[in-house]
Amino acid sequence: MKDFDIKVELTKDKKEKPAFDQLSFGTNFTDHMFVMDYTKGQGWHDPRIIPYQPITLDPAAIVFHYGQTVFEGLKAYRTKDEEILLFRPDQNMKRLNRSNERLCIPVFDEELALAGLKKLISIDKDWVPNVEGTSLYIRPFIFATEPYLGVAASDTYRFLIILSPVGAYYKEGINPVKIAVEQEYVRAVTGGTGNAKTAGNYAGSLKAQVVADAAGYSQVLWLDGKEKKYIEEVGSMNVFFKINGEVITPVLNGSILEGITRKSVIELLNHWDIPVVERKISIDEIFRAYQEGVLEEAFGTGTAAVISPIGELFWQGEKLVINNGETGAISKKVYDSLTGIQTGTKEDPFGWRVKVE
Amino acid sequence: MKDFDIKVELTKDKKEKPAFDQLSFGTNFTDHMFVMDYTKGQGWHDPRIIPYQPITLDPAAIVFHYGQTVFEGLKAYRTKDEEILLFRPDQNMKRLNRSNERLCIPVFDEELALAGLKKLISIDKDWVPNVEGTSLYIRPFIFATEPYLGVAASDTYRFLIILSPVGAYYKEGINPVKIAVEQEYVRAVTGGTGNAKTAGNYAGSLKAQVVADAAGYSQVLWLDGKEKKYIEEVGSMNVFFKINGEVITPVLNGSILEGITRKSVIELLNHWDIPVVERKISIDEIFRAYQEGVLEEAFGTGTAAVISPIGELFWQGEKLVINNGETGAISKKVYDSLTGIQTGTKEDPFGWRVKVE
Ligand SMILES: Cc1ncc(COP(=O)(O)O)c(C=O)c1O
Ligand SMILES: Cc1ncc(COP(=O)(O)O)c(C=O)c1O
Repeated sequence: MKDFDIKVELTKDKKEKPAFDQLSFGTNFTDHMFVMDYTKGQGWHDPRIIPYQPITLDPAAIVFHYGQTVFEGLKAYRTKDEEILLFRPDQNMKRLNRSNERLCIPVFDEELALAGLKKLISIDKDWVPNVEGTSLYIRPFIFATEPYLGVAASDTYRFLIILSPVGAYYKEGINPVKIAVEQEYVRAVTGGTGNAKTAGNYAGSLKAQVVADAAGYSQVLWLDGKEKKYIEEVGSMNVFFKINGEVITPVLNGSILEGITRKSVIELLNHWDIPVVERKISIDEIFRAYQEGVLEEAFGTGTAAVISPIGELFWQGEKLVINNGETGAISKKVYDSLTGIQTGTKEDPFGWRVKVE
Repeated sequence: MKDFDIKVELTKDKKEKPAFDQLSFGTNFTDHMFVMDYTKGQGWHDPRIIPYQPITLDPAAIVFHYGQTVFEGLKAYRTKDEEILLFRPDQNMKRLNRSNERLCIPVFDEELALAGLKKLISIDKDWVPNVEGTSLYIRPFIFATEPYLGVAASDTYRFLIILSPVGAYYKEGINPVKIAVEQEYVRAVTGGTGNAKTAGNYAGSLKAQVVADAAGYSQVLWLDGKEKKYIEEVGSMNVFFKINGEVITPVLNGSILEGITRKSVIELLNHWDIPVVERKISIDEIFRAYQEGVLEEAFGTGTAAVISPIGELFWQGEKLVINNGETGAISKKVYDSLTGIQTGTKEDPFGWRVKVE
């Protein structure tokens, strides 16, 4: 790997760490952060690691008004041998640059960002928790900083990476979640920003989430924006169904996020010779399979929860209880393999792990 | 009006004002800003006017990641008699609260916000420019401040109002603009956030704007997200067509913004007994009318440009030149009346003006 000039300024005021056996999601942050700036004409410059500190911006900064921003989410794990492992971080950097292209944000050097991330983690390595089920959540993000109220792409940006030691994303852990099929609100549509990881997709999803939550469902399952018929994805997960021995996941159609966990699950299933297809799948087809007794499993995939079995789907007044509301065999097998590879307790036949020195 | 307790801290360091005859859009800001905070359990609190200054936020603040934010845009005008007039500001506060509801942001007291706005303008009254075509652009906005990486509505928010003396929005002024019909990208779809004024709608629109700009068009005309067939709106304007003596504008369908200029134009046309209808209108219908020679005028309506005649529409390789690329009679009449009411040179039969004391 190239040698990058990343300046480091260490904190003089280390924070107290939270108890690693009582971690929540995304509320504690480590001592340092990675920062890099973009200026038109100059490109990305001044990559550096500095103490975790507030961001100061002009009130007219474009991010506050027109949401020109993208982000990523990945994790680092501490192994039994005190190694620190990243899971396919190159994929996140690639996706961040794809999101940049959709949002008219200048692309960055992925190798440099990865080098910055590794350096940051090595500095804050004591923050990578060692308790089962915990990890260090990594949030790279980029936002427009130019103070300008015209609707236009910014001439200046900031790239940050912040780190947060986390426990389980769902309070249920690997236990099955209940999910409501969303009938009113729409997350994304072809031609929109659905396949980019950008703020607006999440802002628009909050309302449906609040409604589902009040009804006792932990997430919503989005249908397509055109016909409200085809399955897209769940809040922050892609989704898989096992019907009659075959695993099916919605094909990448431009309006769903290309999940890295999704991709890894498909590769694992192929590796095991378990039939898996990517195709359009309608909610009616799911319901028919349920009625015929061949809807065998359903699960979500995403960095935060890794694998989240779906125990119940709520759709048009019907409660579809899947696999008796229990974790299915495939969900379990995929979960065990993925978390095993991620945390270093299993072989890594695909070369997905990246060690932080 | 109620008496609100709005604290004022005046700047000790007044800025130099830009030349009012050379103003651009949205790059200069006045000496003060209005601020108010929201804390769960406590509600909106501490409305105050303070020197214009940077915003300081935790890097994990929800606005940077999930774009939970809404905004408004309105203007103040200086009359020949040195009065300062606002145009229907109550409508903007109402719409801001409607946007809040879609984005799960707690609603605020519209009267209080309006009182804060008036007080702010009266403090910065010397910034309201007096040159023809200029005005003071007003940007109220609200954003989520809680440092939390879970996808959820924030428990804390900040409400700001900033002010910017502006010249014409389009460099063309009241001269006709060229607009490209967008075929690939989509701004919004029913069930999404299209009828809220929230950051993500604008972030998603940048790409199409960049493409159109490179081809020599100043804005794009959006089609609906489902069939890419029905006309929605332009970048930051609603749109009107005059076909065969009748004025037509797309009906409010949940995916376009309910423009206040749009509403005012409809009320004016009704007042003048000029036929105007709100209905679905397809791009094919526009093209047919063009071919038959009955597409008489087209214009956009919005706070920034007020009325913007459309001189050319580009669609599927065809250039539809409207009214010989010149400003039409209705566009001109509406423009003159609206700007006359706004700037105090004409009667205000509808009571749209609000004086800043
Ligand atoms: C909308 C959305 N879909 C799917 C995913 C899953 O992607 P990944 O497996 O890369 O984490 C995420 C989250 O990360 C997401 O935000
Ligand atoms: C998307 C969009 N449509 C239409 C408008 C016009 O609305 P108004 O007339 O209230 O300014 C605006 C801007 O303000 C806008 O941002």
